[in-house]
Amino acid sequence: MDVLYVLEEEKAIVEQALARCLPASDVHPRRIHEAIRYATLGGGKRLRPIIVRAAAGALGHDPDLVTKAACAVECVHCSSLVLDDLPSMDDAPTRRGRPSTHRQFDVATAILAAHDLLMHAVGLVVENGIDVASGQRALAKAIRELSAAVGAGGMVGGQHVDLEVAGDSAVDPETLEYIQSRKTASLFVAAARGGAILLGADEARLEPLSDYARCLGLAYQIVDDLLDAEGDPETVGKETGKDAGRITFVTVHGSATAKDAAAGFVRTAHEALDRLDGETRMLREIADFCLSRSH
Amino acid sequence: MDVLYVLEEEKAIVEQALARCLPASDVHPRRIHEAIRYATLGGGKRLRPIIVRAAAGALGHDPDLVTKAACAVECVHCSSLVLDDLPSMDDAPTRRGRPSTHRQFDVATAILAAHDLLMHAVGLVVENGIDVASGQRALAKAIRELSAAVGAGGMVGGQHVDLEVAGDSAVDPETLEYIQSRKTASLFVAAARGGAILLGADEARLEPLSDYARCLGLAYQIVDDLLDAEGDPETVGKETGKDAGRITFVTVHGSATAKDAAAGFVRTAHEALDRLDGETRMLREIADFCLSRSH
Repeated sequence: MDVLYVLEEEKAIVEQALARCLPASDVHPRRIHEAIRYATLGGGKRLRPIIVRAAAGALGHDPDLVTKAACAVECVHCSSLVLDDLPSMDDAPTRRGRPSTHRQFDVATAILAAHDLLMHAVGLVVENGIDVASGQRALAKAIRELSAAVGAGGMVGGQHVDLEVAGDSAVDPETLEYIQSRKTASLFVAAARGGAILLGADEARLEPLSDYARCLGLAYQIVDDLLDAEGDPETVGKETGKDAGRITFVTVHGSATAKDAAAGFVRTAHEALDRLDGETRMLREIADFCLSRSH
Repeated sequence: MDVLYVLEEEKAIVEQALARCLPASDVHPRRIHEAIRYATLGGGKRLRPIIVRAAAGALGHDPDLVTKAACAVECVHCSSLVLDDLPSMDDAPTRRGRPSTHRQFDVATAILAAHDLLMHAVGLVVENGIDVASGQRALAKAIRELSAAVGAGGMVGGQHVDLEVAGDSAVDPETLEYIQSRKTASLFVAAARGGAILLGADEARLEPLSDYARCLGLAYQIVDDLLDAEGDPETVGKETGKDAGRITFVTVHGSATAKDAAAGFVRTAHEALDRLDGETRMLREIADFCLSRSH
């Protein structure tokens, strides 16, 4: 079957599940619920939740068993996008071809929606753990990994350092690596591991998934930076060229090296999957799709 | 023993536990960790974590068994204070007698610190669940209650409606009740129930704790509004009179009625404890202490 078709199908499953698991917009207080839905249901590639489902599939489980965990990861991701776009951070007027959440609503509502989405994500992981009777240790581990992926040692720390070095032209490669591994790769890793943990996967099976997801996350971020530097806003769905003055892999190493690096990370992601005994086709197609966006 | 002395002793236990369970400020990236500690360790009465410990005590358990859950509740509370103080919300320059977190650091760092504190809180509940071997169902229930207390049906919703009606002079009592029960009482309830749930308390024992905490939360908020309307900034530790233009129980019903209502809620809180078979002295002293602040 055609790769893009499969990804579109997966995306539709995730979209529907997200729409179901979020609070309805006609519930009081309506405006905050509308903001939560606006921030989450506004399109996007849904790669992270698809990874959650694909990782479960690769371990021989029905991907539907972890759809709630998949939605949780997407809620966390959308929450981080709302914050990234705020005036005090990237000050982005658009996201996914529409006004960013704080432009559509207001800054306070956007911040509160982001706050809610985090807790909503935690609630979804808990529900998923109950659904699959994951046991206390597995549930605790899955929540802890999600919490760590978001916190100051993960996405929060990555975003913080990213803002700290903005405008600084002499950023060392270690700092860049720190930002990219925390800001992007950490949630990819939580996506690949979270659902699998709820389904009882042991460390031996989680380890290749972690390596795969870390490399994929790094590749994805580089491709995203390439698209920003070179892409067409119509296709990318948000303003391009807004990283001018920001430090990215592309500004530090140049486009050619960045393309090579992205390809290298995707290659390593495939090698990690070689160590996983299972049906890894979906995970491989996601990796190839990420890379193909840069061409 | 003197009530205030006992509360001070409890406060010291919570302060020390909080200082231990937060990321050290010399960990990279330092500034975000400093902001997290600044937002959390800046004083405060620590009533909510003391309630967590006192509820465990009332059920016959060692309060130390739920100190991590107590810290989790305080992290959530401090996270909400950071958001409340933001320019897009109350725009408060000071908190607890010091610059508010976004004034001491910057808006982006404050928002990220608040985000981290939420996830840190979830991690602490998980750790506590593991420590006391609470089992999957109890752990899931405790996390779900905390998550619900924070989300759009709880504190986020309360703060949202509070901002929505700001400046509106004709707020109906139902809206006021909505705001106060969500913005303040919901976390008091999660505090009274959370640790108890981890220790295996059933609904029959949780129910009086819930009623107690809901009434105490409502009384506490009214007293807080009275202090803002009439108190001295030196004693209150933050600017007073800043609710001018905001809708509070005091602005809607007047000071005399507000004092009566607070006393009434504390009385009902005591009556709820009458239905609890256990050593409820500490919980009662907390309730009386809350009321005494208004005199």
